[in-house]
Amino acid sequence: MEPPSIRVSEIFGPTIQGEGVLIGLPTVFVRTGGCDYRCSWCDSLHAVDNRFRGDWQAMSVEQIWEQVSALSGGEPLTVSLSGGNPAIQPLGELIEFGHREGYRFALETQGSVARDWFSTLDTLVLSPKPPSSQMSTDWARFEACLAVAQGRPLTVLKLVVFDDEDYAYAKDAAARYPHLPVYLQPGNHTPPSPDRDDVIVDMTGVMRRMKWLIEKVTQDRWFDARVLPQLHMLLWGNTRGV
Amino acid sequence: MEPPSIRVSEIFGPTIQGEGVLIGLPTVFVRTGGCDYRCSWCDSLHAVDNRFRGDWQAMSVEQIWEQVSALSGGEPLTVSLSGGNPAIQPLGELIEFGHREGYRFALETQGSVARDWFSTLDTLVLSPKPPSSQMSTDWARFEACLAVAQGRPLTVLKLVVFDDEDYAYAKDAAARYPHLPVYLQPGNHTPPSPDRDDVIVDMTGVMRRMKWLIEKVTQDRWFDARVLPQLHMLLWGNTRGV
Repeated sequence: MEPPSIRVSEIFGPTIQGEGVLIGLPTVFVRTGGCDYRCSWCDSLHAVDNRFRGDWQAMSVEQIWEQVSALSGGEPLTVSLSGGNPAIQPLGELIEFGHREGYRFALETQGSVARDWFSTLDTLVLSPKPPSSQMSTDWARFEACLAVAQGRPLTVLKLVVFDDEDYAYAKDAAARYPHLPVYLQPGNHTPPSPDRDDVIVDMTGVMRRMKWLIEKVTQDRWFDARVLPQLHMLLWGNTRGV
Repeated sequence: MEPPSIRVSEIFGPTIQGEGVLIGLPTVFVRTGGCDYRCSWCDSLHAVDNRFRGDWQAMSVEQIWEQVSALSGGEPLTVSLSGGNPAIQPLGELIEFGHREGYRFALETQGSVARDWFSTLDTLVLSPKPPSSQMSTDWARFEACLAVAQGRPLTVLKLVVFDDEDYAYAKDAAARYPHLPVYLQPGNHTPPSPDRDDVIVDMTGVMRRMKWLIEKVTQDRWFDARVLPQLHMLLWGNTRGV
């Protein structure tokens, strides 16, 4: 039987991971195409919107690996599986293949689709989407993701916060899963357009929201939450592929 | 016997930790006064230079704890012991006292003075100073710090990098202690003056150095080093107390 092919939007790196628990770590990104969500402020529409389906490529594990291996010079590093929602792609074999070569895998998903291969990841970033996204969270599905991970990968919560309502959602999510480390991230109201990546980021707005978030967290005495910006965005704005 | 008093430059927070392994974490900072080093680009001269000795206060554990407790509203959080070189102060009792209240302690030092109470820390950040600092590292003393820590606290290497020579030093330091996680940080050529904190940071220069460092690390395939900026500096420039 042919192994199923994976829908890939882009493969790039190594560059540093810009967000969350692995912030600052050299990483190759495998961004899959397609998503079951459509967040109002999505910053990766080129990997989400079906209009761009023509740019996505059906690739085998071997084809993907050839690129990852070339980008990293064959030296093991962390591969970030992102999207879109990478959980809707069959990534179990890719992870198994990469692990044999000594690579590590992190996956970021909203937690809407659970896959048994989550348990083979090194890091699982669950990023349920707050009200400002216009999406709604199915917590039963989210918990199915936690159940398949079985606490094997380092599992963390990452929450994007634009406003007070999002902040309340983040607090609720953290309270539901007190055992998960929490990473809060100020939202970017000026995401790239899927057609072009030269949309100027409202850096002042992002930094203002970052300071506001720090103030909220410290005033609330939410002392085990981490507040981190999107580092790649501070460095390169909306430019893609870095 | 009176417990020894601690020389304190400032106590402030909670704000987020801006650097290294605990980046983004709400923290109260206890900055001690005095240092056995005098780095060329020191960004805390107000806690280093003896000219400012008059601003430092000899405080008891109870006096310090009163302030930490007030700032955190009595809610346990991470206390960062910084300086100056906090290792030249008698901090063992403070740590013991805070631990009883559920607080956690991180300490950052260049690794020139070893204290047996290092082993009681939660996080030990060893930050040997690269050539651009004009200081020279005594590796035997550095290793004495590792020895007293005995691998009990989470111990990490933090290396500030301004130029190629610093980068080579960082690689050498990391190679000496391959078991220590490594955090690289681009230097700030425009530190605050000790008399005033409104010196404008050359943000473009810092970000350029950050990108250069990312390029070095990825080209070298140094895939387990983390590259992180000073977040507080990006947010608040050289302003003190945040």
